[in-house]
Amino acid sequence: MTATVTKPQYEIKDIALAPQGKQRIEWAGREMPVLRQIQERFAQEKPFAGIRLIACCHVTTETAHLAIALKNGGADAILIASNPLSTQDDVAASLVADYGIPVFAIKGEDNDTYHRHVNIALDHHPNIIIDDGSDVTATLVAQRQDQISEIIGTTEETTTGIVRLQAMFNDGVLSFPAMNVNDADTKHFFDNRYGTGQSTLDGIIRATNILLAGKTLVVAGYGWCGKGVALRGRGMGANVIVTEIDPTRAIEAVMDGFRVMPMIEAASLGDVFVTVTGNKHVIRPEHFAVMKDGAIVCNSGHFDIEIDLKSLGAQANEVKEVRNFTQQYSLPSGKSIIVLGEGRLVNLAAAEGHPSAVMDMSFANQALACEYLVKNKGSLAPGLHSIPTEVDREIARLKLNAMNIQIDSLTPEQIEYLNSWNAGT
Amino acid sequence: MTATVTKPQYEIKDIALAPQGKQRIEWAGREMPVLRQIQERFAQEKPFAGIRLIACCHVTTETAHLAIALKNGGADAILIASNPLSTQDDVAASLVADYGIPVFAIKGEDNDTYHRHVNIALDHHPNIIIDDGSDVTATLVAQRQDQISEIIGTTEETTTGIVRLQAMFNDGVLSFPAMNVNDADTKHFFDNRYGTGQSTLDGIIRATNILLAGKTLVVAGYGWCGKGVALRGRGMGANVIVTEIDPTRAIEAVMDGFRVMPMIEAASLGDVFVTVTGNKHVIRPEHFAVMKDGAIVCNSGHFDIEIDLKSLGAQANEVKEVRNFTQQYSLPSGKSIIVLGEGRLVNLAAAEGHPSAVMDMSFANQALACEYLVKNKGSLAPGLHSIPTEVDREIARLKLNAMNIQIDSLTPEQIEYLNSWNAGT
Amino acid sequence: MTATVTKPQYEIKDIALAPQGKQRIEWAGREMPVLRQIQERFAQEKPFAGIRLIACCHVTTETAHLAIALKNGGADAILIASNPLSTQDDVAASLVADYGIPVFAIKGEDNDTYHRHVNIALDHHPNIIIDDGSDVTATLVAQRQDQISEIIGTTEETTTGIVRLQAMFNDGVLSFPAMNVNDADTKHFFDNRYGTGQSTLDGIIRATNILLAGKTLVVAGYGWCGKGVALRGRGMGANVIVTEIDPTRAIEAVMDGFRVMPMIEAASLGDVFVTVTGNKHVIRPEHFAVMKDGAIVCNSGHFDIEIDLKSLGAQANEVKEVRNFTQQYSLPSGKSIIVLGEGRLVNLAAAEGHPSAVMDMSFANQALACEYLVKNKGSLAPGLHSIPTEVDREIARLKLNAMNIQIDSLTPEQIEYLNSWNAGT
Amino acid sequence: MTATVTKPQYEIKDIALAPQGKQRIEWAGREMPVLRQIQERFAQEKPFAGIRLIACCHVTTETAHLAIALKNGGADAILIASNPLSTQDDVAASLVADYGIPVFAIKGEDNDTYHRHVNIALDHHPNIIIDDGSDVTATLVAQRQDQISEIIGTTEETTTGIVRLQAMFNDGVLSFPAMNVNDADTKHFFDNRYGTGQSTLDGIIRATNILLAGKTLVVAGYGWCGKGVALRGRGMGANVIVTEIDPTRAIEAVMDGFRVMPMIEAASLGDVFVTVTGNKHVIRPEHFAVMKDGAIVCNSGHFDIEIDLKSLGAQANEVKEVRNFTQQYSLPSGKSIIVLGEGRLVNLAAAEGHPSAVMDMSFANQALACEYLVKNKGSLAPGLHSIPTEVDREIARLKLNAMNIQIDSLTPEQIEYLNSWNAGT
Repeated sequence: MTATVTKPQYEIKDIALAPQGKQRIEWAGREMPVLRQIQERFAQEKPFAGIRLIACCHVTTETAHLAIALKNGGADAILIASNPLSTQDDVAASLVADYGIPVFAIKGEDNDTYHRHVNIALDHHPNIIIDDGSDVTATLVAQRQDQISEIIGTTEETTTGIVRLQAMFNDGVLSFPAMNVNDADTKHFFDNRYGTGQSTLDGIIRATNILLAGKTLVVAGYGWCGKGVALRGRGMGANVIVTEIDPTRAIEAVMDGFRVMPMIEAASLGDVFVTVTGNKHVIRPEHFAVMKDGAIVCNSGHFDIEIDLKSLGAQANEVKEVRNFTQQYSLPSGKSIIVLGEGRLVNLAAAEGHPSAVMDMSFANQALACEYLVKNKGSLAPGLHSIPTEVDREIARLKLNAMNIQIDSLTPEQIEYLNSWNAGT
Repeated sequence: MTATVTKPQYEIKDIALAPQGKQRIEWAGREMPVLRQIQERFAQEKPFAGIRLIACCHVTTETAHLAIALKNGGADAILIASNPLSTQDDVAASLVADYGIPVFAIKGEDNDTYHRHVNIALDHHPNIIIDDGSDVTATLVAQRQDQISEIIGTTEETTTGIVRLQAMFNDGVLSFPAMNVNDADTKHFFDNRYGTGQSTLDGIIRATNILLAGKTLVVAGYGWCGKGVALRGRGMGANVIVTEIDPTRAIEAVMDGFRVMPMIEAASLGDVFVTVTGNKHVIRPEHFAVMKDGAIVCNSGHFDIEIDLKSLGAQANEVKEVRNFTQQYSLPSGKSIIVLGEGRLVNLAAAEGHPSAVMDMSFANQALACEYLVKNKGSLAPGLHSIPTEVDREIARLKLNAMNIQIDSLTPEQIEYLNSWNAGT
Repeated sequence: MTATVTKPQYEIKDIALAPQGKQRIEWAGREMPVLRQIQERFAQEKPFAGIRLIACCHVTTETAHLAIALKNGGADAILIASNPLSTQDDVAASLVADYGIPVFAIKGEDNDTYHRHVNIALDHHPNIIIDDGSDVTATLVAQRQDQISEIIGTTEETTTGIVRLQAMFNDGVLSFPAMNVNDADTKHFFDNRYGTGQSTLDGIIRATNILLAGKTLVVAGYGWCGKGVALRGRGMGANVIVTEIDPTRAIEAVMDGFRVMPMIEAASLGDVFVTVTGNKHVIRPEHFAVMKDGAIVCNSGHFDIEIDLKSLGAQANEVKEVRNFTQQYSLPSGKSIIVLGEGRLVNLAAAEGHPSAVMDMSFANQALACEYLVKNKGSLAPGLHSIPTEVDREIARLKLNAMNIQIDSLTPEQIEYLNSWNAGT
Repeated sequence: MTATVTKPQYEIKDIALAPQGKQRIEWAGREMPVLRQIQERFAQEKPFAGIRLIACCHVTTETAHLAIALKNGGADAILIASNPLSTQDDVAASLVADYGIPVFAIKGEDNDTYHRHVNIALDHHPNIIIDDGSDVTATLVAQRQDQISEIIGTTEETTTGIVRLQAMFNDGVLSFPAMNVNDADTKHFFDNRYGTGQSTLDGIIRATNILLAGKTLVVAGYGWCGKGVALRGRGMGANVIVTEIDPTRAIEAVMDGFRVMPMIEAASLGDVFVTVTGNKHVIRPEHFAVMKDGAIVCNSGHFDIEIDLKSLGAQANEVKEVRNFTQQYSLPSGKSIIVLGEGRLVNLAAAEGHPSAVMDMSFANQALACEYLVKNKGSLAPGLHSIPTEVDREIARLKLNAMNIQIDSLTPEQIEYLNSWNAGT
């Protein structure tokens, strides 16, 4: 495998940003005690010795700790950006300069660069792929059939990516195991709900500095991310409207005290809109047409397709940046629509992504999922696999310990009771 | 099958209570539009023609509507109480007098009577059992092996009952299909969370008339019921502490803003305690010993075993009823502990059980699960079966329609997107 | 003063109810530690020796403790009902039988009886009047000018009563001091907000057993009572709409995350309506006309005038009691409207009024306000007087102590800082 | 008055920042419809013609709109910074360059510069002072007795400043009227509660990027600011502890569901601390001594005296900036304490201050208070004056209109009812 010899060592904005990046990586580490313990264990046990690994992630301070864990574990790992807007250039610099990890990611890189980086990563001939949205896996499956035999497995942590993997599996092209990190309770309960909830509002506030109290906030989608955004929106005093396509989630939102209605009705009522559906064109021309002047629109779903910005742009007389990450589309009607972060993940574009404390558990799942793939190499069927419950509980346990919180344990009498079925009669 | 000839027609408190019961059943019907539609369809389609069915349920106004649906569907159905304290005698009377449904249930019946009623039910030689806590099924399996061949299947809606069925299956004694109604999203998200949440507080307030604002409320268990009680407790201004044995649920409670600690610590801090664990002796002598004078203790889990009242009674100098459903245990230390509803489900003992609006969906699941068993007679494997997703969604859809709430549907473009995996690349 | 000789000793439902009343009075005492301490001090200090006092109150277990405090303090006190529906007959019986306090109050008494009781009370020739809605004071001022010279002062705890006293003062007919108990922080922050909040929902749930989660709750009025109802309504999962006539309160409700709109719009959206305005005909024919079939309407303001039931009754084909305290008005349109507690205070009509824990502070204010009137006899100007801040704080302090909660106190450095104005420069 | 001739025209960071400042000022204007209407009216009516006015404020985009309103009204106005850390240099530049308003404010200016600016402002010989914390007024009263006769009055909007003005009045040195803008309902309900609530959390999150869910947040002080911080903290999933010195506020916090305890107990439990008391050294060495390693401490009260940073600094081995506005104090014990914004207002130091939407109403009060002073020149007594209720309501009304929210108005029948006192009898 001589590919690694000729490839460029890294492609980042500015290596001189490393000191600032290092300080920020260390700051994030304060809130990541679970991953820290895993880093320490991996450094001793080297579970990834001889393994080539590529990680396609948002290049943030938290991802840095995942990368460090993998490298500590002996992996020959390289890191690329999963999203052109989310790269923190100082973190990329520090990973290269301080931790010796090759990184290919520049904030604001164009689509060509992004796809070039995906191909650089695949040129690394990975055995394991940590994917985020399944772009790398989709590229591999579509364009690099010859490398598939080298793959031990992949891990994926977004709803979007899981949907795509399932579609690949249904099409018969997913011929290796894929760990569904998103399904782990310690992932989606926390990352999607508490992480997306706080950081989406953080992104909106940093981008606009608006007061949320008294605003009508429309949340498209009531999955775990949507639940988090709606809950935190209400917690900040907004009046929340939920839109859904799933009747069970819709009725759940109603029972949680939110208004539920089709987007075409919500569109004329909302002051701020957030899409978190994993689907395409959830807000589209028919909705823009009835929005209030000055309505603010953003996305916290994985891809930048949830808002149909192409149509909006085609209609607009002018598109102007009015604050950082805040663009005003002036429409012929005289009305304007404000779009945040170009429709990309607003928490990454305008804020700092998920707080370290939630990524701690999500990335602990990623790290342990990779270990699980290696340990079970050859014995896992192709297709999606859940994170084993014991991994999930272990992560929760490490987190509680780090927070110095004790919980009850079952008494012998209770264990016996749970295992008997004739006690009540 | 001549057993039905000799059995008594009913055993209730007082048939003269029927008019009041009828009025209350009709009142409940206002909030049960889903079951009403099912009653209408069953009356036409008669899916249970020739089927003997027994339902062991809390005999409430809502259960009445389930019983009516089953009878409308052609079932030869009888109803017994699943809990000695939860029977509403006027409802029992009306079911007999106005709807012609045999009922064997008297509020406050003793254990012997309860078990006699279970046996009367089994003497009916049921093909389908709607169970609530799995007592009837456990009795059948333990004592009536000869009737097992007559069984098409059972349905069960409590966590407690599911745990017991799983234990039976593990022991190799569950040789017929059992529909896990509790697992349906339209059941546990709503009944366990919103139903138990509101009605548990309602039971506590009716029993005691205390102000919840400013009280420390200890919730043992953070499953769907516990989440509901904790959420509504906070909604009423209480300061909530959660106890758990599962680390993932514990960390979820922490992230939801609650304090989490072992019961032995919570015991000395709480003003009011609610157990919703499905387990035994969650509050026991070591906890009573450190409670505040006047601490209020109650249970909202299925069985009356979550609080170790036998031990508490053995310690007490005196047990005195100080309000309806409210007993004061005076301890040698001079301290007293207040126990509500004798440790039975406080929402049924001291209030009216779950509001009709949630039972509407739970019992729609029960009714459709019975229909599913009949339709798939012979083709379902022994053991637990989930409610099919389409049943679940249909119930949610009927409920939304009844509330006059519209939701979005997928556009063709979105359907195509969800089924493709190479759109993002 | 021979009037007391000939007057009947009491007029209650049934003296045999006394044992049950006594038990309930004692139960309430557990949550009333502030008033208990005042009862003890009054028993020693006898501040009301030689004083004739009449209290026009809801005759509940909590009022019993106020009456006991006054009697302990040496007052020649009698008690009448301030509201025909709110009397707890067992409490009335126990006050007579066990505590020797004359009571004139029967649950459900008609208007003639009510006014006869007001006159019996005035025949007592009171020096102090504890009023609740200012009916007694209004009667005195309008019909018994000759007794005015005997008055030391009155106390009043409702917003409604304060509005009327202010109107009397503006008309020049209030020629004695009136203590505004409603204005005490330890009264209106707690009683109006937390007390009315919880007990209004309690009344609605006991009357109807509906699930609040997912319902649209319209709260008319965003004063302290309305804030409490809206807050607790949201806490139970309802979607809350507020109506107001005051723009400042309206914008406050908006910022608290509620929808605000005129009643004529809210009328067509609400599932449940609560009036807490202190004003008349807040819900009237134009609103009934657009309500949903089955809409539930109730009042938690002092008088039964907030809902125009006379007009509704005139329209109705039939008025039928469908549950206790729950009447269904069937309208010619085929629609029905559900009215709770005949438009009287729903928390008293259908539940047990405010929980003892809040009345503890409100009635401590009443008791100390009476003591203040006696101590300052002759020196207070006619008109409304606020409760002195130190009384207010003392009550809060006694309550905190009873709850075993410590707080900080100012350091000498901080006291100095607060008294200086040139420290920051 | 030749003073204005020789004074420097402005003292700001960099006039070249003006374009960015202008864009941001315009952005803020979108959320300030009330002040915009006032700007328009003032431009026509010129209420401040011939008036010299100085405004000592946080120099933010919102303050810019106040300054523009004053200038539109004909005032000869200059602006200085009320806080060395809160100046937005681009806004200062734009005010000078685009709006012709002299500004003396540079972010990070030292204390000497700050006091020099205060004196430059006083050299302007103001007739009206808009103060923020009462530093300018205190300097005037202490050092410039000769100018007092030129003063028409002052306005003050902080709790801190009001406390100082009251102390000046008590000392007999406040010989002119001071409008208490802080007391206006449209100010303190909104600015202090919703503004401080959101922006304090915003400041903490921007400075640290921590997840608030699951953290223990200690809020010192339960005035309107503290209520806002506690409410929003809970809304973000934190577990909130309140400390207080006032028993009434303490019991209110308890009833709102928060834990209340002395700071010395809270200190060992908190993850994040916010002071909002208006008092000095609320967190001091005895508290630092028992804090957790890594505890985060910040202030949202007006002055930077609430946390005793001098003592903390004296103890520390090292003080290091670990993120922007985030300093780590390493203590000899091995523990570290994190201090945000150097103990200055965290929402201004680390975020952008209050959102425009709340400042809209606060500054409308300031503008109308100045107009009121001019209109009532000579007729107002020395000392503190409340904002007239009609001003307050007018502001609320303008805001509702701008939000397109209608409310009810009283019917003639209701007006009559409110003015009568004998309707209920």
